[in-house]
Amino acid sequence: MSAPDEQICTLISPLDMHIHFREGAMLRTVAPLSARDFAGGVIMPNLVPPVDNLERLLRYRAEIEAAISGMGFTPYMTLFFRAYSEAELRAVRPHIIGVKLYPAGVTTHSEAGVQNIRDAEPTLEIMEDLGIPLLVHGETSGFVLDREREFLPIYAHLARRFPRLTIVMEHITTREAVALLDEYPNLYATITLHHLQITLDDVAGGLLQPHLFCKPIAKRPEDRAALLRAALAPHPKVMFGSDSAPHPVSAKEAAACAAGVFSAPVALPLLVEIFAQHDALDRLQAFISDNAQRIYGVTPPHKKVILQRKPWTVPQRYGDVTPYYAGRTVEWQVVQTML
Amino acid sequence: MSAPDEQICTLISPLDMHIHFREGAMLRTVAPLSARDFAGGVIMPNLVPPVDNLERLLRYRAEIEAAISGMGFTPYMTLFFRAYSEAELRAVRPHIIGVKLYPAGVTTHSEAGVQNIRDAEPTLEIMEDLGIPLLVHGETSGFVLDREREFLPIYAHLARRFPRLTIVMEHITTREAVALLDEYPNLYATITLHHLQITLDDVAGGLLQPHLFCKPIAKRPEDRAALLRAALAPHPKVMFGSDSAPHPVSAKEAAACAAGVFSAPVALPLLVEIFAQHDALDRLQAFISDNAQRIYGVTPPHKKVILQRKPWTVPQRYGDVTPYYAGRTVEWQVVQTML
Repeated sequence: MSAPDEQICTLISPLDMHIHFREGAMLRTVAPLSARDFAGGVIMPNLVPPVDNLERLLRYRAEIEAAISGMGFTPYMTLFFRAYSEAELRAVRPHIIGVKLYPAGVTTHSEAGVQNIRDAEPTLEIMEDLGIPLLVHGETSGFVLDREREFLPIYAHLARRFPRLTIVMEHITTREAVALLDEYPNLYATITLHHLQITLDDVAGGLLQPHLFCKPIAKRPEDRAALLRAALAPHPKVMFGSDSAPHPVSAKEAAACAAGVFSAPVALPLLVEIFAQHDALDRLQAFISDNAQRIYGVTPPHKKVILQRKPWTVPQRYGDVTPYYAGRTVEWQVVQTML
Repeated sequence: MSAPDEQICTLISPLDMHIHFREGAMLRTVAPLSARDFAGGVIMPNLVPPVDNLERLLRYRAEIEAAISGMGFTPYMTLFFRAYSEAELRAVRPHIIGVKLYPAGVTTHSEAGVQNIRDAEPTLEIMEDLGIPLLVHGETSGFVLDREREFLPIYAHLARRFPRLTIVMEHITTREAVALLDEYPNLYATITLHHLQITLDDVAGGLLQPHLFCKPIAKRPEDRAALLRAALAPHPKVMFGSDSAPHPVSAKEAAACAAGVFSAPVALPLLVEIFAQHDALDRLQAFISDNAQRIYGVTPPHKKVILQRKPWTVPQRYGDVTPYYAGRTVEWQVVQTML
């Protein structure tokens, strides 16, 4: 929903359907930045050790809630995929929005992930029966630019094999993944902010930019164009998920740089900027909240977020994390939030 | 030439036909590492300001010679391409091996390069008449993975337009560039060590590796395979050129990382390792020296370099530069050098 005034954009209960909050001091730094602008978000479970049992999940949720109490933000919790019994999944079901599957070793803290997708099938069958969505980091361990494309047949296999399972292709980055949405009714996707904006050229075309290095890595201009079309439409099966993934500067500006773009503090203003540039502000509400509510069947807290066109400069650091757009100007900012 | 003993490899006057020596303290750190193992090398002119006149060139050569005196190493000097008069080129000709052309802005210190290749033609005509080779950083300003491929028609145009001009495609990285060698008799190429070994996967497939970031960026496995085939044959028109390009650690492990792989201290041992792995030690002499001598018509100092299979660990730093293979084991080492 956008007001008739082009300088104001009002959004109801924006959701970030893919966030890394981490733990401890990092969580206390980053979680309030998401909670300030959003009404809820899907919290990734790839901690060390992973969030893969109810007790750990409840403790983690309590830690999050302590960091954002009173901010009108629902953390939608996820469980790290492993072989679960039906009893385990029944017990955890009221507390989660889905189970996140990482193929082993493809991204930060995914060492505990799945080696062979067939091994996952007994658990997926239970999830399908219990109506628990599956969230997937869909990359093979192949050549870096081919990993998502190579994974698409696995998505197709899962969608056919478990037709009642809601499957979310997380942070898609290729035109082929966008196209796959139309092939299977139970396939959905999240799209990040940065994959709407950058290509591999921005990461490695000039000086190398460690703060733009993420997984999946940004692809070609044609891929970015397909993602942007899907977000701006918006395709009814896509949702916003920032994949905001903070690392301390020491882990980014290093001899070996960790993958992750920390976009939480700028995500909502920059999405408004993008949609405004494309005269699509009236379609942002669906991408930022309504699609996700329908796909997952969730009702977040009612939170009215008003943004105004009022340029600001993004700080160089939040805590010891360099944000996306550090030192750059963002055109819009949140000026009022009403619960 | 390799001795019958598989543990020994003897090379005569190895040449590195593409090196960045820099200036000042950096030059004094890095130049002796090349001069130790090689009998000569082609010195890149992309300093700030560029080496684009005879006086600067002679001063730069003197600085190099002071750093490596008595080491049996000939610095083959190059001039930074700009519009030169015939008088200028005649005067500089005895002092250079060629003129290096950088399309404007594509790599480190190439801001002074050529904007439009047509503007270069009057100078190229003089170079053709005077028999001065043209060395080219062949990348457009397009999408990072397409830049070399997009430049190939420019190579083809130059090769046709100036059929008597020796044109060296520097540090080629794609299978299409290898294939172009067979299309035009006056096209030649250098190949680096690292492009024989790494792909984009090594740079950005796991943690991001700033010390493997270079221009042109490493490409796909199929490209690496084509380069390796050309080097191992060796294709009669390819020469070794390390493109060894030192940057201080502070410029690599940074929010914006400079392009360049510093391979000088390990280049010769690793080439022996690669050729040994492919049972091609008897073909290394052509790749490392004979082809270059024939293509450029140069005769370097006679320097016999004997390597032995004797593993060693590459230091983490030379001065304040992290070398290629830092901390890793290299199987071969230079055990004797005879002038």
